[in-house]
Amino acid sequence: MIERMLQVPTIAELRRLVGEARRQGKRIGFVPTMGYLHDGHLSLVKKARETCDFVVMSIFVNPLQFGPNEDFDRYPRDLERDRELARSAGVDLLFTPSVEEMYPRQVLTTVSVAQVSEPLCGQSRPGHFDGVATVVLKLFQIVQPDAAFFGQKDAQQLAVISQMVEDLSVPVQIVPCPIVREPDGLAMSSRNVYLSPEERQQATVLYRSLKQADAWLKEGVPLDEIKQRMAEMITAEPLAEIDYVEVLTYPRLTPVDTASPGQQLIFALAVRFGRTRLIDNMLVTV
Amino acid sequence: MIERMLQVPTIAELRRLVGEARRQGKRIGFVPTMGYLHDGHLSLVKKARETCDFVVMSIFVNPLQFGPNEDFDRYPRDLERDRELARSAGVDLLFTPSVEEMYPRQVLTTVSVAQVSEPLCGQSRPGHFDGVATVVLKLFQIVQPDAAFFGQKDAQQLAVISQMVEDLSVPVQIVPCPIVREPDGLAMSSRNVYLSPEERQQATVLYRSLKQADAWLKEGVPLDEIKQRMAEMITAEPLAEIDYVEVLTYPRLTPVDTASPGQQLIFALAVRFGRTRLIDNMLVTV
Repeated sequence: MIERMLQVPTIAELRRLVGEARRQGKRIGFVPTMGYLHDGHLSLVKKARETCDFVVMSIFVNPLQFGPNEDFDRYPRDLERDRELARSAGVDLLFTPSVEEMYPRQVLTTVSVAQVSEPLCGQSRPGHFDGVATVVLKLFQIVQPDAAFFGQKDAQQLAVISQMVEDLSVPVQIVPCPIVREPDGLAMSSRNVYLSPEERQQATVLYRSLKQADAWLKEGVPLDEIKQRMAEMITAEPLAEIDYVEVLTYPRLTPVDTASPGQQLIFALAVRFGRTRLIDNMLVTV
Repeated sequence: MIERMLQVPTIAELRRLVGEARRQGKRIGFVPTMGYLHDGHLSLVKKARETCDFVVMSIFVNPLQFGPNEDFDRYPRDLERDRELARSAGVDLLFTPSVEEMYPRQVLTTVSVAQVSEPLCGQSRPGHFDGVATVVLKLFQIVQPDAAFFGQKDAQQLAVISQMVEDLSVPVQIVPCPIVREPDGLAMSSRNVYLSPEERQQATVLYRSLKQADAWLKEGVPLDEIKQRMAEMITAEPLAEIDYVEVLTYPRLTPVDTASPGQQLIFALAVRFGRTRLIDNMLVTV
């Protein structure tokens, strides 16, 4: 039997329904998204269903986390399709606030996470992680979930949010979920629809280079040499333009020259194909 | 019958006890303090008792909100006395965490409230309101109260916290409480204990100048002229050194040249006596 999914656009109504579920003793799981759902998002819902009794998903394209020249306006949106996917995946309550509902007045409050926000996408997208931390903390205050589910594809986002939750003692368990990939290895992303067929094909180089990096690490190739070889692999694809190729400690994202046994590292990539910027990463324990 | 007050130093134990009260359907009131309690604090407890069934007070001298040359180390502390005062006032649960309990690792997360944090004490104490907003949001996440009680003596702090709570949809009702004064008008403050007898006597000029300001406003004296007259009154006290004398809109704390009918304004003062810095203010509706 497929249960009925409720959809609400207001904070007040969301709170009322979540409060009701909470009073029934249900454990509340939360999957925040920007919509245009794919199997990556749906894997978060599946994970949430395993440990929670009531799953809330939000769909909100958050203007605070887009830079002035980024793709806020053209970010793909299809609420009809998302609603059907969310319902089928087992979402109980879909929260679809407007920008005016979330930010009725100028937002003066900013949540910043130092250090963890600074490298990688923090370099390429100034202010991005302030926008992410601020909206996620606000969504946590609205939904008050017991657990929230985030994909490791956005590994730096996950690190920023985990640090914020720990620093501020936010009573939400953060559950990281593995990257979901297309059959040819491309990490699922709402932005993949931007790619031309040719770009789409060449974009498989992100995952190929990450798998190679892992193999090279096991062979004992020095980290600098690995980064260089990855960059060469990527630039061999004529449409690819590297934003960054980096290896750092995880989750603190500090620089690392030489891998030490037991250390967790992240190989992280951002690569542009035309106007489309893709990210991918791999966590490895040395 | 005087009820037993519990005191806990850990976040985990605090949460357990507040959770128990919440499950009993009790409304949770919260009074955050830095201790060295006076009648101002106790008036907050009294107000909390009027509308809540379970009152939590925290005593935590928060290092994040003190500048490097400020009085963190010598800030007055007397936990024995505070405990007795809190108990008599009707506090149910006293939360007394150590700095290590609140900040076991370097805190990387900062909550900032633009504009409202910038004038007045924001000028004199750079970073102060970031420290206040960050610790108050953390305490709210720990206690998860229904309502929190703040004195209007720290009017800018109240404005910063109210703005933060609104921007982030924090599910806590912020209840402002009137300033409590000594018989001669000096606003109660833990820092009053720093004053020499001579300074203590001259410190009454803060409230005297505020009452005059209100009278002058009613007479139609222009705002600039009022500020100047207040400054003259204060500097007539030989030990007083003005940090600021200001009139702004409230609660947004924007500059104002001419009072418009119906507008809420704040006359705000910070004055040093030796090493002691005192603040006071008066809200007026034009």
